[in-house]
Amino acid sequence: MNNKEQAELVLGNLVLAVEMLQSCAEFALLVPEVRVNLAYALPGAKTPDEVAAVDGRVTVVRGFPYASGMPQWGASDHLARRILEVRKYDAEINAAINFKCDQVVIKVVQKYCSEKGILFGWIDRTREPDEVAKPDGSSMPWKIKQLYTNYGGIPRLSYEGEGWGKEPLFVVLGSDAVEVAGIAIEIAQRYQQRLS
Amino acid sequence: MNNKEQAELVLGNLVLAVEMLQSCAEFALLVPEVRVNLAYALPGAKTPDEVAAVDGRVTVVRGFPYASGMPQWGASDHLARRILEVRKYDAEINAAINFKCDQVVIKVVQKYCSEKGILFGWIDRTREPDEVAKPDGSSMPWKIKQLYTNYGGIPRLSYEGEGWGKEPLFVVLGSDAVEVAGIAIEIAQRYQQRLS
Amino acid sequence: MNNKEQAELVLGNLVLAVEMLQSCAEFALLVPEVRVNLAYALPGAKTPDEVAAVDGRVTVVRGFPYASGMPQWGASDHLARRILEVRKYDAEINAAINFKCDQVVIKVVQKYCSEKGILFGWIDRTREPDEVAKPDGSSMPWKIKQLYTNYGGIPRLSYEGEGWGKEPLFVVLGSDAVEVAGIAIEIAQRYQQRLS
Amino acid sequence: MNNKEQAELVLGNLVLAVEMLQSCAEFALLVPEVRVNLAYALPGAKTPDEVAAVDGRVTVVRGFPYASGMPQWGASDHLARRILEVRKYDAEINAAINFKCDQVVIKVVQKYCSEKGILFGWIDRTREPDEVAKPDGSSMPWKIKQLYTNYGGIPRLSYEGEGWGKEPLFVVLGSDAVEVAGIAIEIAQRYQQRLS
Repeated sequence: MNNKEQAELVLGNLVLAVEMLQSCAEFALLVPEVRVNLAYALPGAKTPDEVAAVDGRVTVVRGFPYASGMPQWGASDHLARRILEVRKYDAEINAAINFKCDQVVIKVVQKYCSEKGILFGWIDRTREPDEVAKPDGSSMPWKIKQLYTNYGGIPRLSYEGEGWGKEPLFVVLGSDAVEVAGIAIEIAQRYQQRLS
Repeated sequence: MNNKEQAELVLGNLVLAVEMLQSCAEFALLVPEVRVNLAYALPGAKTPDEVAAVDGRVTVVRGFPYASGMPQWGASDHLARRILEVRKYDAEINAAINFKCDQVVIKVVQKYCSEKGILFGWIDRTREPDEVAKPDGSSMPWKIKQLYTNYGGIPRLSYEGEGWGKEPLFVVLGSDAVEVAGIAIEIAQRYQQRLS
Repeated sequence: MNNKEQAELVLGNLVLAVEMLQSCAEFALLVPEVRVNLAYALPGAKTPDEVAAVDGRVTVVRGFPYASGMPQWGASDHLARRILEVRKYDAEINAAINFKCDQVVIKVVQKYCSEKGILFGWIDRTREPDEVAKPDGSSMPWKIKQLYTNYGGIPRLSYEGEGWGKEPLFVVLGSDAVEVAGIAIEIAQRYQQRLS
Repeated sequence: MNNKEQAELVLGNLVLAVEMLQSCAEFALLVPEVRVNLAYALPGAKTPDEVAAVDGRVTVVRGFPYASGMPQWGASDHLARRILEVRKYDAEINAAINFKCDQVVIKVVQKYCSEKGILFGWIDRTREPDEVAKPDGSSMPWKIKQLYTNYGGIPRLSYEGEGWGKEPLFVVLGSDAVEVAGIAIEIAQRYQQRLS
């Protein structure tokens, strides 16, 4: 597969993942204040410009998840840098999605991971050293190293606890956007059942 | 390339083509009453469900072309059937886009085709036999056969004159969505210069 | 009420009408090739710039009616000119919506009008004189005069039969956008039942 | 003006304010992680359901501010509760908009307020008592009381510093949505000049 085909495949996989999210009313319950993004990196990507994501993020309109724009290169910063950093430890990771984190979601995800045999982790941001907690993004290497060190591998599902000025969030990692969206949707369905 | 990859490649190519159209203010001048669609068929597609297009079509919002929804399978009927019919004569055609047809656009396209050495054609709907001009879609084989017979091949750019209850329209055919969108954009830029 | 308030009231009434349409899956069945618009004129409006409508029109996305943009001044040409012309005969008309016209819709609307005691009409475009059937819009006065002369008043629901290059269409006229959207939705629900 | 007209006027004013934001590329620089909302309360509103805001919030698509959905009742929680609480002290406030807060924005806003003679304030969330810093929303009365006590009135422009799990944010208060959007746009233009 050439580079042009590889890039189109990433964008097309994101279209399919967005369609899955937009069809799932329960996922609206997992949209956090910062909204959801969904990112998928090219093989060998070096910068966020080689990672595609949903332009404008995924929000909630008329009760359903809604992608404000099309998949586009460079449309994510945080998730893109996370994928790039994680790949230093786990070469199978290409895609990520974030969603809301609260005490109920944490229990739902723990049970889900336990049933499915998926490695689960969390990052305690209260232990983040001052020198990395800067707006320049240097906290990402610290966070991923924490996960790797604490869990002996990169957990496919993990959350970051609250930070100073930072909303707590879950992140799912996987091989493509359809896979991570599918996991997020399963979590959303279990969460909705737990609430009702 | 497997079927899953092939499908993602089609959707991703449509995302790139939509991005090109949305960036081109001049193309807003070519959006007809029925709006624009942009369709791309899988290899070996048999029905419109195996052809992807822009859900909700491309309209004009705040002066720019705007894709109302994401690329999706089965989102076009007319252009999809046109691609499927054309392929019986020309196996290289996978994608199509339509745009506005008036006397100025016709002149611009004729000049463009002449310069680029592209086969240009038109369909005279006043000659459409009564038995095919039905809402059941049987006019498509007649139209494509007319083009093939009159021009000795399938023109990459052609228009259908006005019909009874039908707006006249241009259609560009090509190998993928990015190619046909690129041609439509070049026409739009020449059209805008001609008007100004 | 001052001019500023009057303008905001028109835009706000369009927002409510759009919300009604977007909630009604059945109305997707009535979206014609040229898409739907919904227009509402200021009192005393002289030109389409004093008539607000949905920027980009109402299309169908993911199976539901979808407003591509916000209500905006000057976003309709045809419906705006229709309202302005109709007002010369009937000062109570401020708003209009169009939808698909076929033999089944015609029957549904006739029955609806008969039950509700609403004046119903149609315009036979085959009788349109050559000198008005021009792209400069001079056919509007002829069309409205035809309706007024044939029916002794302006029908609140009417259709234009097919024309040369023109899709047949229904138009509902009323005092505000919410009223005409409500009528269109009732027709859509009856049409859906008739089809099923 | 009756209740129906009052409600339409609020929605219509929001449409105008959204149009202003969508036309202002500089405002994209002020969109925070949690996105922007813009809320406008009915006179005498008691709950967020009587406050209209942009469904899905305002995000950034293709470099421009973009309203994901239409103005709708109940589409804001935080800004709606803020307006309702502020009105206990200042009956002239009906509308609010939030935007990004960083050290440069703080300087730009301070200078703006000083030039225009507008009362400026901030809330130090590190002083927020534990018993109000709960997800049940009880922190709002504390925050507004802080502002009122510290500044002898409700500042039209103020920010909340970072909190535990909370992004710092600016809020503009005013009499209608067009007014607060206009102020946010002026800040955005000054911010862009400062950055360049």
